[in-house]
Amino acid sequence: MEKVVSYQQLIDITTQVFLAIGCSEAHSASAAEVLVAADLRGIDSHGVARLSGYVRLWEAKRVNAKPIVQLVHETPSTGVIDGDQGLGLVVAPIAMKVAIEKARQVGTGWVSVCNSNHFGIAAYHAMMALEEDMIGMVMTNASALVAPTYAKERMLGTNPICVAIPAGNEPAFVADMATTTAANGKLEILQRKGLDTPMGWIQDKDGLQITDAHALKTGGALLPLGSDRDHGSHKGYALGAIVDIFSAVLSGANYGPWVPPFPAYVPMPENQPGKGIGHFLGAMRIDAFRKKEDFKKDMDQWIQRFRQAEPIDVHQKVLIPGDPEREMELMRRKDGIPLLSVVWEDIQAVAEKLNIKI
Amino acid sequence: MEKVVSYQQLIDITTQVFLAIGCSEAHSASAAEVLVAADLRGIDSHGVARLSGYVRLWEAKRVNAKPIVQLVHETPSTGVIDGDQGLGLVVAPIAMKVAIEKARQVGTGWVSVCNSNHFGIAAYHAMMALEEDMIGMVMTNASALVAPTYAKERMLGTNPICVAIPAGNEPAFVADMATTTAANGKLEILQRKGLDTPMGWIQDKDGLQITDAHALKTGGALLPLGSDRDHGSHKGYALGAIVDIFSAVLSGANYGPWVPPFPAYVPMPENQPGKGIGHFLGAMRIDAFRKKEDFKKDMDQWIQRFRQAEPIDVHQKVLIPGDPEREMELMRRKDGIPLLSVVWEDIQAVAEKLNIKI
Repeated sequence: MEKVVSYQQLIDITTQVFLAIGCSEAHSASAAEVLVAADLRGIDSHGVARLSGYVRLWEAKRVNAKPIVQLVHETPSTGVIDGDQGLGLVVAPIAMKVAIEKARQVGTGWVSVCNSNHFGIAAYHAMMALEEDMIGMVMTNASALVAPTYAKERMLGTNPICVAIPAGNEPAFVADMATTTAANGKLEILQRKGLDTPMGWIQDKDGLQITDAHALKTGGALLPLGSDRDHGSHKGYALGAIVDIFSAVLSGANYGPWVPPFPAYVPMPENQPGKGIGHFLGAMRIDAFRKKEDFKKDMDQWIQRFRQAEPIDVHQKVLIPGDPEREMELMRRKDGIPLLSVVWEDIQAVAEKLNIKI
Repeated sequence: MEKVVSYQQLIDITTQVFLAIGCSEAHSASAAEVLVAADLRGIDSHGVARLSGYVRLWEAKRVNAKPIVQLVHETPSTGVIDGDQGLGLVVAPIAMKVAIEKARQVGTGWVSVCNSNHFGIAAYHAMMALEEDMIGMVMTNASALVAPTYAKERMLGTNPICVAIPAGNEPAFVADMATTTAANGKLEILQRKGLDTPMGWIQDKDGLQITDAHALKTGGALLPLGSDRDHGSHKGYALGAIVDIFSAVLSGANYGPWVPPFPAYVPMPENQPGKGIGHFLGAMRIDAFRKKEDFKKDMDQWIQRFRQAEPIDVHQKVLIPGDPEREMELMRRKDGIPLLSVVWEDIQAVAEKLNIKI
């Protein structure tokens, strides 16, 4: 069963929820826009399905609703931001604005963030650069669900990387990917449907590859992009590690197995070496390299040529990263956003608890 | 059969070869150091096994032995370098020095390069940053051998990414990876041994996954990291695409299927949109983010904690990216570098042709 809700209605509800836990009007509006961007783009696992989770983090005093976000260190092209334990949904757009302003001044800007929380989808923040004719590059660490190659133990989050690149007449190139074979959201879909995963997504507590979509609950781990050593899992592990180090070791956030968990009921890791979770956000001005017009002309040709690559199956054309999400957004802006009953009931329960009429 | 040659002997021969084709003393020394670094680190496919290939590119007038490498565009944190059709082995270290100098000035430096040729292993260039207490990030495009997800056609090179991160007491973190499931060099090893590949490395001319290590010669293609759509090949494809765009669309080099081939006998693609092949090189000063000492302390702890991750098999510990190459280098500096007879004969033939005594 599904409930279809309009984009605007979902923004209104979400804004009300953030206001009710004490966020400022500006922060609530910003957080709502970031969160619902996930639903709009079809990344349902990262959108309003997590709204009650954010509220529970606030209830557990792991999220500060009134953060004073500060730039604590900087050079002309870099900065470190302390998120003051705020919502990542609020902290990350502030950090991205700093990166963009630095890029305006000296060509590129790179900001590492500590003391933050989950920031929704990386694509929202990276795409902020597009309007400025800049390339956006955004990553974040997350609590450990992924086993490095040869390990039983969960050491890394699904640690996504997003790169957004503007084009001319063509829509932008937007690659937003977990550094695992399959994102956790895809696993959740199979769990709900009672289906098995393909081999290569997950291992059990002993490090054996299995197909049980529930294996994370019994000590299992997600596998890095590449699945196993023969298929390059050491590369997926290295990518996840780079995200972890850029996001957290550069900023002074927690890394590896010490990253705070999203579910508020999971205890915090002991002996944490840093503050909160970490992000890394960058912007590069196109015309810091080449004339904007020349870049865009070549980027259009790049996109057109790849779209025309000879397909294996004539019914499945070659895609450009960002195509499926852009098409989903067009459809959902028009027709509304379908929510699973369980998600809609969860939102209603949160609203009721906070005395919000929806 | 193998011939063992000392590091210094290999450097001497290689330097002589570059001198003989007309490179300056400084360029010959630099190119030799970059090329032999591959053999030293165990990336045999990218080292002196390619020496005769570079000479053939020069014979075919695709390599300029006396390039005037120029910074043609810049901002405080960025630059574009025109390699004047020089050896990538010469051009890339010059570009990396520019990136490092910019990082010294404004925190980070990012240089995109056009009109270059193959640059050996990315790790050599990225590791130049380590001595300066900087993070190095280096990528390059290459001629098309890889089919995007859903495509029959080869559209991307194996487009490697290297990230080198300094630590304190621990050795540096150095991840250097093709964005394919398996690097072309691994394929070559199986070809020589007459062995099949695992499924997931390669497809035939119709886009069907096969295990024939020779399939590239009959219209087949390497597969992006992830192997197939279910295992995230769209992520490997996106990574390879990002490398292509940063290296070539930002600089005005050739991209996608238009990148010049390494073998001099393969005709150049028609209607090339840019100049030569492209690289992208960056440096980030650690202390542009955090106190060096704090970063290094956390980086040491990161490395130590990951080394201690519980292994699946007690005989195979969890590795840190760069471990195998570093150990290989230690061994080969001491014991010499083993070359396949066919490679040694190839070097002897090149030397003879150029009147070099070895």
